[in-house]
Amino acid sequence: MNAKSQRGWTKDPSELLRVGEGFRLADVDPDSKPGYDGRKKDGRADRHAGEEQLDELQERLYAQSREDPSAPAVLLVLQAMDSAGKGGIVRHVIGSTDPQGIHLAAFKKPTPEELEHDFLWRIAREVPEAGFIGVFDRSHYEDVLISKVRELAPPEEIERRYDAINAFEAGLVARGVRIVKVMLHISPEEQKARLGERLERPDKHWKYNPGDVDERMLWPRYMEAFQTVFDRTSTADAPWYVVPANAKWYARLAVQALLLDALEEIDPRWPAATFDVEQEKARLAAS
Amino acid sequence: MNAKSQRGWTKDPSELLRVGEGFRLADVDPDSKPGYDGRKKDGRADRHAGEEQLDELQERLYAQSREDPSAPAVLLVLQAMDSAGKGGIVRHVIGSTDPQGIHLAAFKKPTPEELEHDFLWRIAREVPEAGFIGVFDRSHYEDVLISKVRELAPPEEIERRYDAINAFEAGLVARGVRIVKVMLHISPEEQKARLGERLERPDKHWKYNPGDVDERMLWPRYMEAFQTVFDRTSTADAPWYVVPANAKWYARLAVQALLLDALEEIDPRWPAATFDVEQEKARLAAS
Repeated sequence: MNAKSQRGWTKDPSELLRVGEGFRLADVDPDSKPGYDGRKKDGRADRHAGEEQLDELQERLYAQSREDPSAPAVLLVLQAMDSAGKGGIVRHVIGSTDPQGIHLAAFKKPTPEELEHDFLWRIAREVPEAGFIGVFDRSHYEDVLISKVRELAPPEEIERRYDAINAFEAGLVARGVRIVKVMLHISPEEQKARLGERLERPDKHWKYNPGDVDERMLWPRYMEAFQTVFDRTSTADAPWYVVPANAKWYARLAVQALLLDALEEIDPRWPAATFDVEQEKARLAAS
Repeated sequence: MNAKSQRGWTKDPSELLRVGEGFRLADVDPDSKPGYDGRKKDGRADRHAGEEQLDELQERLYAQSREDPSAPAVLLVLQAMDSAGKGGIVRHVIGSTDPQGIHLAAFKKPTPEELEHDFLWRIAREVPEAGFIGVFDRSHYEDVLISKVRELAPPEEIERRYDAINAFEAGLVARGVRIVKVMLHISPEEQKARLGERLERPDKHWKYNPGDVDERMLWPRYMEAFQTVFDRTSTADAPWYVVPANAKWYARLAVQALLLDALEEIDPRWPAATFDVEQEKARLAAS
């Protein structure tokens, strides 16, 4: 929390937003800005200030892994109702760092090939390698969210998946993958406004999908499914964070802060030279 | 050349830098800034101005592909001697656009599995899908550069590869992949200074590889191998561009201009809605 305390944060967002015992999604106000004492312009300025820090930490993470293949990685998992701002997080938060250290995977409706395998098969293939910040735009949690709400799998299979997810994630953590799971939380009214804007603007029509309204009609069932996800899969090693996201600027700032926290905890260091520096200087001079 | 004419460009870089008949690498001055009438600060300002344009064109390219799976893609191939600035291009030029539309592949020394296949096997798997800007940090050209200089394959195999590359790339072009092949051209003196800086700074040691000096000793042979690459594989459909790169700011600006040109030629459009907009407005309002 070193970094954030110098800025508009009054409290550590990674504590405030973390899903712990007794968490109730229904109690979270999507308009709120927990821990941040500032307005939109402050938030944007603080995010820009954080970019340099994120950039250096990310480069250190990558550099460290070049000498040590078992070095850590970070995995940001993004889940949300449509139009909640996942794309904006990728563009504005992840997009501020060097693309060479990012591994982004967007999970769509499973393909026939993917459906022939266990639901974690396609996920495991996209886990970031050492030194990378991986980003999952949707994830294995779709398999206990839309799959539950839409009854795409039998209840006992859905039930099995929570434990399978926890075991899978525990395996990743053991391998050195620091997992940050984020739900961007908007209100149904905010979603209506955002989908409405997509319909008003021809350059946004491609982002609109009539299916979004179908899912929207099932809002309460989705919120229940999210609540179950939090109850069953917010573990000490791989906690969930619920980020109020009606204010895009707050959500972006908060996710950046969560990433900064994860990276500061890893505290990646520039690796020591694996060669004799003076000898190399001499070789270079002679070349 | 619409966009560039408004800025410091006096001539279209995609014409000036293109490798055509009779091109001789030895005639290119790595310190030169062909077609650009401005200094470093102008170049940086122009690059920042171009970012917005690149961003919109990239988003259109992506949007178009959502409705049309046969829509075009762009593939930027980057080749160069060590420290010539490939990483800086990815970070500063590619890094200014939305990561969601970028597919980046860095090709290292082939793995044992890769070596069991034809040299194009690993390359074909990383070709960008419709709507993406793909970036190859090194590429199949390593197989006719280091492989030739270091004699990693018999001469007849190297010889075969030029034609194989042309056939492979012609296939990509036919599928709608617009290929932009760039060699970043630095002088040996500039490389010496850059490698020297890596040795001076502990936070840059991880970027230094003693093997770089070994390759450096073979500079003339590499330049010959590049010349042969240009003679054999700079085709009308998939031309090479040699970008003088002693001035990093110029190289970045020029590569951005080449990408802008490729995208302007594609001229991607926002796709028309595939649904009834008024009907969706009504459904949304009722939801």
